[in-house]
Amino acid sequence: MTELPANRIDRRLAELGIALPAAAAPVANYVPAVVSAGLLIVSGQLPFGAGGGIDAHHKGKLGGEVNPPEGSEAARRCALNVLAQARAALGSLDRIVRVVRLGGFINCRPHFDEIAPVMNGASDLMVEIFGEAGRHARSTVGVAQLPLDACVEVEAMFEVTA
Amino acid sequence: MTELPANRIDRRLAELGIALPAAAAPVANYVPAVVSAGLLIVSGQLPFGAGGGIDAHHKGKLGGEVNPPEGSEAARRCALNVLAQARAALGSLDRIVRVVRLGGFINCRPHFDEIAPVMNGASDLMVEIFGEAGRHARSTVGVAQLPLDACVEVEAMFEVTA
Amino acid sequence: MTELPANRIDRRLAELGIALPAAAAPVANYVPAVVSAGLLIVSGQLPFGAGGGIDAHHKGKLGGEVNPPEGSEAARRCALNVLAQARAALGSLDRIVRVVRLGGFINCRPHFDEIAPVMNGASDLMVEIFGEAGRHARSTVGVAQLPLDACVEVEAMFEVTA
Repeated sequence: MTELPANRIDRRLAELGIALPAAAAPVANYVPAVVSAGLLIVSGQLPFGAGGGIDAHHKGKLGGEVNPPEGSEAARRCALNVLAQARAALGSLDRIVRVVRLGGFINCRPHFDEIAPVMNGASDLMVEIFGEAGRHARSTVGVAQLPLDACVEVEAMFEVTA
Repeated sequence: MTELPANRIDRRLAELGIALPAAAAPVANYVPAVVSAGLLIVSGQLPFGAGGGIDAHHKGKLGGEVNPPEGSEAARRCALNVLAQARAALGSLDRIVRVVRLGGFINCRPHFDEIAPVMNGASDLMVEIFGEAGRHARSTVGVAQLPLDACVEVEAMFEVTA
Repeated sequence: MTELPANRIDRRLAELGIALPAAAAPVANYVPAVVSAGLLIVSGQLPFGAGGGIDAHHKGKLGGEVNPPEGSEAARRCALNVLAQARAALGSLDRIVRVVRLGGFINCRPHFDEIAPVMNGASDLMVEIFGEAGRHARSTVGVAQLPLDACVEVEAMFEVTA
């Protein structure tokens, strides 16, 4: 990685006009991220906003109170929180070699099957920021409920340098 | 791996009369599989059939429109798509050292609890093809909905050779 | 790891008065745990009790038949089964370097959003036993159904020594 400029990801974030939120404290007895065996595992992140809470329009179910653009925005917010946790755990986002996998959980009514486009809010952000290295494997499923009635939760696995 | 015959998995597939489908394009902005740190992570695969779409009897919910044999057949189809993605990503299925984990998501009505037998459609296929190396860890859960109203989604982690 | 006393985790379990259950056989065609690339992946575990079955009050849905303290107790029981599987797979729990990740699936009614506290039953146990090394990344989601109508399922990833 020696040829790559320092703080390149922070500079990319600035170029894109993206400010990462503060890394949120877990809502229960666990840690936000663990580095092990060359991987960084980030706990499922909720769409906490700048104020630290979840906005009312990011609570509830897709196919119910939450419409698809709101869901997609919430997924993007979850992904920003994933990156905030990654930066806190790694010291620098430059240590990310590859976004390996995102897991997307969409809180939805049983009839709502347009869940992949909702999750794109998270996937698109990773590609915007990391380019080719941001292209990841992904599983998206519609769930019965999420903590705090959040409409989306996103977990992640990254390959990282020592 | 030098003692093992080349194309042994392709020959095993031929013996079993199994033709892998074409590797399906992701339904959104991500990639079907990522190799990292000696692992291959395959994105959640849906039961796309030979024609490229999901058959009508593989759409909907277990405990509803979809009966258990159809669900199990869909799980097997998901696993075939997992292997198609693995072959496209690795060049050869001979690089698979071990099927490490399958994650099974069963689209079901809240009362339907016979979800483990449905997922066997995927697990059995792995053992048929890879023998002892096909025996994997697994989590199966019943979800509220899946992309495109698919009745099953299967994701996978493999150990692979460089 | 050479300076650490042998059987230290078994002794810690004894201190805490915790007896691990027998490692349960998988309910279908897969294995309880796989060691690969320095990681131990444990299959989703159900809250089987000492008698080998799931107690009636650990069947059904949170927000329905199962109340939060029962759910939390079930999550702890799932975690005990995770450790029973880990010990069976590794020979000794002393080989665990770090609890990397727990995945918690809570069988719940769509309105029940207090799922994180339920999952604490599993997380707290890991920290009780392993201390700092027990602090893990975690994702908790509410699902439509689980195998055998269990109220909770917990899967795990550990970093282990060769």
